[in-house]
Amino acid sequence: MPKFAPEYILAALPEHQVSPLPATRPVRVTDALSIGGREVVVAAGPCSIEGYDMLLASAHHVDAAGASLLRGGAFKPRTSPYAFQGLGEEGLEIMAQVRECSGIPIVTEALDTRQVEHIAQIADMVQVGARNMQNFPLLAELGRCGRPVLLKRGASARISELLLAAEYIMANGNDRVVLCERGIRTFETITRNTLDISAIPVLKRETHLPVLVDPSHSGGRADLVLPLALAAIAAGADGLIVEVHPNPPTALSDADQQLTFDEFDDLMVQIAHIATACNRTIKRPEPASRGSIPAMECAPQFDRRRTVPGKAAVA
Amino acid sequence: MPKFAPEYILAALPEHQVSPLPATRPVRVTDALSIGGREVVVAAGPCSIEGYDMLLASAHHVDAAGASLLRGGAFKPRTSPYAFQGLGEEGLEIMAQVRECSGIPIVTEALDTRQVEHIAQIADMVQVGARNMQNFPLLAELGRCGRPVLLKRGASARISELLLAAEYIMANGNDRVVLCERGIRTFETITRNTLDISAIPVLKRETHLPVLVDPSHSGGRADLVLPLALAAIAAGADGLIVEVHPNPPTALSDADQQLTFDEFDDLMVQIAHIATACNRTIKRPEPASRGSIPAMECAPQFDRRRTVPGKAAVA
Amino acid sequence: MPKFAPEYILAALPEHQVSPLPATRPVRVTDALSIGGREVVVAAGPCSIEGYDMLLASAHHVDAAGASLLRGGAFKPRTSPYAFQGLGEEGLEIMAQVRECSGIPIVTEALDTRQVEHIAQIADMVQVGARNMQNFPLLAELGRCGRPVLLKRGASARISELLLAAEYIMANGNDRVVLCERGIRTFETITRNTLDISAIPVLKRETHLPVLVDPSHSGGRADLVLPLALAAIAAGADGLIVEVHPNPPTALSDADQQLTFDEFDDLMVQIAHIATACNRTIKRPEPASRGSIPAMECAPQFDRRRTVPGKAAVA
Amino acid sequence: MPKFAPEYILAALPEHQVSPLPATRPVRVTDALSIGGREVVVAAGPCSIEGYDMLLASAHHVDAAGASLLRGGAFKPRTSPYAFQGLGEEGLEIMAQVRECSGIPIVTEALDTRQVEHIAQIADMVQVGARNMQNFPLLAELGRCGRPVLLKRGASARISELLLAAEYIMANGNDRVVLCERGIRTFETITRNTLDISAIPVLKRETHLPVLVDPSHSGGRADLVLPLALAAIAAGADGLIVEVHPNPPTALSDADQQLTFDEFDDLMVQIAHIATACNRTIKRPEPASRGSIPAMECAPQFDRRRTVPGKAAVA
Repeated sequence: MPKFAPEYILAALPEHQVSPLPATRPVRVTDALSIGGREVVVAAGPCSIEGYDMLLASAHHVDAAGASLLRGGAFKPRTSPYAFQGLGEEGLEIMAQVRECSGIPIVTEALDTRQVEHIAQIADMVQVGARNMQNFPLLAELGRCGRPVLLKRGASARISELLLAAEYIMANGNDRVVLCERGIRTFETITRNTLDISAIPVLKRETHLPVLVDPSHSGGRADLVLPLALAAIAAGADGLIVEVHPNPPTALSDADQQLTFDEFDDLMVQIAHIATACNRTIKRPEPASRGSIPAMECAPQFDRRRTVPGKAAVA
Repeated sequence: MPKFAPEYILAALPEHQVSPLPATRPVRVTDALSIGGREVVVAAGPCSIEGYDMLLASAHHVDAAGASLLRGGAFKPRTSPYAFQGLGEEGLEIMAQVRECSGIPIVTEALDTRQVEHIAQIADMVQVGARNMQNFPLLAELGRCGRPVLLKRGASARISELLLAAEYIMANGNDRVVLCERGIRTFETITRNTLDISAIPVLKRETHLPVLVDPSHSGGRADLVLPLALAAIAAGADGLIVEVHPNPPTALSDADQQLTFDEFDDLMVQIAHIATACNRTIKRPEPASRGSIPAMECAPQFDRRRTVPGKAAVA
Repeated sequence: MPKFAPEYILAALPEHQVSPLPATRPVRVTDALSIGGREVVVAAGPCSIEGYDMLLASAHHVDAAGASLLRGGAFKPRTSPYAFQGLGEEGLEIMAQVRECSGIPIVTEALDTRQVEHIAQIADMVQVGARNMQNFPLLAELGRCGRPVLLKRGASARISELLLAAEYIMANGNDRVVLCERGIRTFETITRNTLDISAIPVLKRETHLPVLVDPSHSGGRADLVLPLALAAIAAGADGLIVEVHPNPPTALSDADQQLTFDEFDDLMVQIAHIATACNRTIKRPEPASRGSIPAMECAPQFDRRRTVPGKAAVA
Repeated sequence: MPKFAPEYILAALPEHQVSPLPATRPVRVTDALSIGGREVVVAAGPCSIEGYDMLLASAHHVDAAGASLLRGGAFKPRTSPYAFQGLGEEGLEIMAQVRECSGIPIVTEALDTRQVEHIAQIADMVQVGARNMQNFPLLAELGRCGRPVLLKRGASARISELLLAAEYIMANGNDRVVLCERGIRTFETITRNTLDISAIPVLKRETHLPVLVDPSHSGGRADLVLPLALAAIAAGADGLIVEVHPNPPTALSDADQQLTFDEFDDLMVQIAHIATACNRTIKRPEPASRGSIPAMECAPQFDRRRTVPGKAAVA
């Protein structure tokens, strides 16, 4: 502490302290999993569900590495209509089967009001993608779906707008909303988006809702996922949603930003150090709650090597 | 590690590893201080030099708390010509005297090519403000000034442009350049700027120059300085430049974003935890290198309570 | 022409001419109305359908002033769930009745895939709002709806993304797509959005689709509608979509940016001058194609003075 | 005018009229040239002064085509230190000689406070480039230079900041300030910048200062210069500053956005139509005020074919 403190300064020093962050109200996802407490929660998995084997492998891997949720898209909102649009209904079936085999809860995206009921029957948590943050009929439908919702911030949404989007879900009866910062669109072109790291402490002050960060879409580059993830935890995020793929260069979407299994393992180790420094821990999934069906015996009805719709399986 | 690993995945797994960050080449500021090594360096002090006492008090405080550099503006680039423009030459004299008394090295901003030579005689490091990042004659002059340069990124500069601005300094003979991310201008209005946290790892990959972060201007809010500082260290920054003021509500510039001494002490404690988690430490200034003149005996020629130019001293 | 022309310049002068704009392929809206030809088309009307009388009055007024399409929202995408959401189904009924009475074709927005079929039965043209530009299931549904589509650019969509959004509609079988520039989100706060005037000539080079401009949302200020409308026509837009309200200060949405009837009359006069200077004309609706039911006899089933849902009519 | 007007609307109609634009106070450049009156003023010429012949040819051409001011950079602010930086002092000498020969007044950019006095002796109008809009010492120096100043808006400057930058010049004694909108930085990448066309009417309401538009830098594409110029005049700009080059593909800077002489002739014809539609005219330079020295006899001291500094003249 400084020795020097003239009286005029001591006298003038105001009661000006950074107040402690207001308490976040945890959102229950499953009986064993809540988001928003002292434990940092990680959701991980491939951008798109490309087939049964790749999803099951991803599930087992991210589960073993410490993720609490499996992510994976069945319906993919792609900028071009000619890009891979996801496996759709087949993807949902794969997802359901993988959850049964692996026991890991699943979060997946809904794009259309007409899908919400069906997706909510299968997924443990329903995601609203950035492009749909102001798809108000979809938000209203999710307000009635009975599942927790992961609401991603639109790429050009102000924080005030994100909070009002959450309000659409809550005003329709569902207060299990988790917010997700995933990068905003700026003039910078060296990254896909610009992670708005300030959004984390700002949201912590403005709302009781938990906040996840998506370091994969934020930068759009695999080499940035780790530093952005570390920064997010340090800034107070309640968790991460990370894209992981068995073989990123072959991914049918977001090939540039998905981590390998090894990279993900490394990330889980490193964020644990930061969490400890912040007096938090990484949520460890409870093995007992997971499925016990031997993986190889699961889902015989699927062509297990199928990875691209309409194409023959890889030999 | 996952139990499940079908052959096709093992076979397909590429040599796709996040490579370690390339080495940063430390920049020497003084014989006792370099930026860019394993030690995290903190520069701190008031936005503007408002008087002798407030700067000396700030110097002693931030020094004792672990800062390695004192920041303070004598020439202030203000959006309005009717706002406080800094004490100018008098500010430089105060700065020189405070360094003599306190022993802490000083970084201050140059706005005009005509000032560079004089400022370089007094300051240990010369800062280029965000508004001058593409003031090319100024950059060229700083290339010839013989002092290390702290180059702040322009509020709407792409990273590629920041690197070329650094090139202007280096092409003129000065390779002691430290970059500084201080927030970019986006559509979000809840913060003054948007800290581009990704800039840290991106710059680490693109250049050997050290990277500081300014969490004060990034958010423009005192309550965001701490979380942004923690995130910056976690993302790999080589240090911080933080605004600290003996009494922020009375500050003549940037009143909303300056920390109190207590808040700064807390920040120094907390970033040390993050630095440890990242296998780094906070640079501890060496007391031996500091001045030994008793503070109260310093600089009797100054009206020590003066804080506003042209106004009577506070009673 | 200059007298001075040294040989080296004459010799060097390349074949470098601005090529003429490629032809736009007009989109048929009704038998009497196409967008994209030499005639500039104006759509006008209130932001929201607030009641029968106000819509009918607007229809008659904008028709008489030279508009070819009536705009008006029944389903309103509002940032807050607590703001007026439009009259919904009742709004559609009012719209249908007003078209029958006035004969002016109608464009209105669809928000939800489940609404498309019904709206397409009533409206002459279906609008996709900026927030839904990447609502891909909605675009796909509109590709099958049998009506021309007015596709508004998202507030942070790149032009390349707008064109791919149009592609979603066309890939599903509907090539009657009209694009609409309506302002993008930038750092500037003095206007609601920033009209990207360059988008007009860029789109004219990149696609054969017609381009309208919305000068109301672009600036978000009634006082900017006229100069932005003039600029849009001068830059080559195929028409405008303008918000006009019988009494803007009382409007239930977008009160700041709607024109009065008088202001709209003035706009129609002034754009005609610019159109003439550009060798175009303003589309004059053909009175013969319009309804002949005396206005006062129309739609006796409506409480004609109703303007706010759930509130008593104005006395 | 509409036949239909129910009483409730007539009664409710407010006194809500678009007020006429406030008067702009013209800024005198030379005795024969003012900017800001009913006459639209065009400045044109090459991005950089690359040699004597090319500047004289440009001067004669743009003069004959109806431009009132010649533009050309001697000191060029280039993003990279390794790009052509302008001919510097030699460029100023060329400029002075060309003005003597051609009689057309000249506007050129000052980058450094130390250059202002010298440039102000030669140029008729001194330009502040976008990168220097908040170079406050430069603005202050221009406030004392005795020449009218063309102040370009920074690429990420809010309009409020542009006005305060103008205030720096005026507060130092020079009220001959002309503002220039030249495009802002946004997320859109298909154009170099985004012309903020709304800035024209907004500035017309907020200030009495004249407003020019730079359609060359706004889009960064030669093919967009004409439509943006037409839009600017339609939106109320007091004039244009356009890049024109004898042979754009060989230009040492901004090759993509400079017009050929023929394209410029076409632009001058077309903007005259728009100006007429707006009840304005294009300023016609008065031939009597121009130099009468035969071009070929001018400036024998220059290597007239020199176009690149340090390189041999083109044979």
